[in-house]
Amino acid sequence: MEKPSLPKGTRDFGPAQMAKRQFILGNISKVFQKYGFQPLETPAFENLSTLTGKYGDEGDQMLFKILNSGDFLKNIDATGLKAQNTKLVSSRIADKGLRYDLTVPFARYVVMNRHEITFPFRRYQIQPVWRADRPQKGRYREFYQCDADVVGTDSLICEAEIIRMINESFETMGIADYTIKINHRAILSALAELTGDGKNEAALFVSIDKLDKIGAEKVKEELRAKGFTERKLALIFEILGFRGSLSQKMEFLTTQFPGSVKGQKGVHELKEILSLLHGLGGNEHHLEMDIALARGLSYYTGCIFEVKINNASVGSVSGGGRYDNLTGVFGMPGVSGVGFSFGVDRLYDAMEERQLFPHETQVSSHILVAHTDGESMRYGLRIVNTLRQKGIVAEIYPDPSKLKKQFEYADKKKIPHVIVIGSEEMSSGLLTLKNMGTGEQQKLTLEQILNHDV
Amino acid sequence: MEKPSLPKGTRDFGPAQMAKRQFILGNISKVFQKYGFQPLETPAFENLSTLTGKYGDEGDQMLFKILNSGDFLKNIDATGLKAQNTKLVSSRIADKGLRYDLTVPFARYVVMNRHEITFPFRRYQIQPVWRADRPQKGRYREFYQCDADVVGTDSLICEAEIIRMINESFETMGIADYTIKINHRAILSALAELTGDGKNEAALFVSIDKLDKIGAEKVKEELRAKGFTERKLALIFEILGFRGSLSQKMEFLTTQFPGSVKGQKGVHELKEILSLLHGLGGNEHHLEMDIALARGLSYYTGCIFEVKINNASVGSVSGGGRYDNLTGVFGMPGVSGVGFSFGVDRLYDAMEERQLFPHETQVSSHILVAHTDGESMRYGLRIVNTLRQKGIVAEIYPDPSKLKKQFEYADKKKIPHVIVIGSEEMSSGLLTLKNMGTGEQQKLTLEQILNHDV
Repeated sequence: MEKPSLPKGTRDFGPAQMAKRQFILGNISKVFQKYGFQPLETPAFENLSTLTGKYGDEGDQMLFKILNSGDFLKNIDATGLKAQNTKLVSSRIADKGLRYDLTVPFARYVVMNRHEITFPFRRYQIQPVWRADRPQKGRYREFYQCDADVVGTDSLICEAEIIRMINESFETMGIADYTIKINHRAILSALAELTGDGKNEAALFVSIDKLDKIGAEKVKEELRAKGFTERKLALIFEILGFRGSLSQKMEFLTTQFPGSVKGQKGVHELKEILSLLHGLGGNEHHLEMDIALARGLSYYTGCIFEVKINNASVGSVSGGGRYDNLTGVFGMPGVSGVGFSFGVDRLYDAMEERQLFPHETQVSSHILVAHTDGESMRYGLRIVNTLRQKGIVAEIYPDPSKLKKQFEYADKKKIPHVIVIGSEEMSSGLLTLKNMGTGEQQKLTLEQILNHDV
Repeated sequence: MEKPSLPKGTRDFGPAQMAKRQFILGNISKVFQKYGFQPLETPAFENLSTLTGKYGDEGDQMLFKILNSGDFLKNIDATGLKAQNTKLVSSRIADKGLRYDLTVPFARYVVMNRHEITFPFRRYQIQPVWRADRPQKGRYREFYQCDADVVGTDSLICEAEIIRMINESFETMGIADYTIKINHRAILSALAELTGDGKNEAALFVSIDKLDKIGAEKVKEELRAKGFTERKLALIFEILGFRGSLSQKMEFLTTQFPGSVKGQKGVHELKEILSLLHGLGGNEHHLEMDIALARGLSYYTGCIFEVKINNASVGSVSGGGRYDNLTGVFGMPGVSGVGFSFGVDRLYDAMEERQLFPHETQVSSHILVAHTDGESMRYGLRIVNTLRQKGIVAEIYPDPSKLKKQFEYADKKKIPHVIVIGSEEMSSGLLTLKNMGTGEQQKLTLEQILNHDV
């Protein structure tokens, strides 16, 4: 018999991991809800016509495709097969694909339900996504995304609220040392204008986005190879290299793009967001203006941000930004929105690394009822029922095993207390309560145990 | 541009549905946890070798298969393609499939982690499953299952606890009128022995399982066609037709299988489960012994049960039973366990039909802060922040719109209270609190609003 195994790049989440994941997701959902975001779930698979062409060529190749059911070969002619034309054949035998992210399904949902939705629409969505990526440390083929978006408004209050939500989420999770980097796509565009006609935007963004990872010299090398002159590099790096506080940076930037409508707009919006943030009771404590932040070549058009836990080896644990045309691709143009997302796996890894999970995350019984024979087991049934009625998570060991085995069970499952019932306990009504941490044993009535701090 | 659509048999769950689903799943998880069950999640797809052959031929055909990534045609030779041999080709181009249920992945998990798991192992698992079934009313290609199992013990306490868990789950969900049907596979076997040598078991079970749906006459017809004689039919229906209370049925059955080890065992175990149920504070109120209950041709070997909400048009909303060899197929024989499952979609439909959802399930803000100009909007930021700090789910309307539009928004989103801020409110510090249900307006300080019952 073949030993069962997991598909490459996937994981089981056992009780200990689930408890920690639920700690993260539970806290984040509570904050989402507190800010008026409502839950949405979409199907695991979408029509390939919905997904294809939305994530670039590389993304298209990473879509998991689902074989049509029934006689899937009937639509294939001999030509495609003989030529072993993978692309052609796959388009004929698979018309569904697994969700690649939560953004495209959300856009599809908004377009399909535009007449029922009350805008501005605030939704959050916590579901797994799948990518046929090459698995490696910290990169999986199945992982959770955790998104919140507001669509149907260009109000900058939303950006300020997102910063507050990140603050609150991290606070509830016990993460104190983190940095929210912010930037604005219009400032990046102004930077591209400075160095020419702005046509080099994409090339410029891709390179400076790596500044953190590969350093200034390597970025300069890349830009030189892309045709940027030394004069332009000097211009770019004078701005990128400016050091100072958030407000100093803002003031500096105000003077850098005197003739640029985009530059002025970007700086003005960032200032406005900061002002609204103060209005909402927030401050700049965790904020850092990072002119090099570009968030790849995505669909963002306004403010963008990215969050890192300081002194943790994982990359960014959250990020997002404003977009102007999320639903345009499905025939509903001009819908502005802003969204952000938490990377659950990276948050998990960072919290493990920094030992930030509370001691008591694991979902486990608080009390095990142990027994010495059939009669004490029946007596124990009544006890475990009373404990549960009082809301105490309790279980009774189901088999007539030796006490040693029952204690071992409690120990391995990290159940902190064991009530032991034997003939003496039954006749006196005084139950033995053992603290599994200290080994200490007390004789207590059930009433006393219920009032005890267990 | 093509209009986006959903794949056949799948659904989006918008905010209103999500709130109701979370009400159901939240209540069920709480009960699972209270009884010491711990959460598990497995990947959406498994190796096809894990899934194939576990659900019968019909099940195999309903597996969604995932096309191998990369050049999936390279393993196909001309023969398979020319013959358009669907089965052969699919085995070469797809080695993963979507989860069909939660039981097989659970068995796979137990076998792979047998050395780390503390037995008896209680796990619950709430995840979607996928079946390439023909979609129809109430039947979807993606739906949630919600399973709890204990493995590694044959203690009948587990069966009694399952009955208690069903009781408690329904109580927390406000479902009062329901029936838990129980039976025992050994009693069914004894019935098959009575009518011959027991070789007709499968044929007999499949037919009598339909008694509820198609009635006695049709079942008799089916059995006749399968070769059962009139004498045997009379024997079977004498037992199936017995009417009486639970305890009367038990007594009746005790006398029906005098020479059958299986029959005696089945009756004895059911009696023991009832006794343990009483020990756990439960009773027979919702229980019904149903000798015709067979739960299809599944892997159950002991007590089986099925739950129906009375006077609802959906079928059973929960069911389960004991099995002796769940993990044998993966090379780990002799592990006894018992499990049950809630059908979330059917529970949802039944609760809608019987109007059992509480009024306030929807996750929505309790207060909307509305404003009349830029200044009052900034004033409102402070108000919404204070409300949130006090744990009140609140939002501020993000755009500078007319009050009418802001009220409409609150109305559509079922936000029960609106705080209106204008110049008068700012100068007096007395805010207008509007009750959206009654239309009543009050002038209150923020302090008074916080102490108000909102």
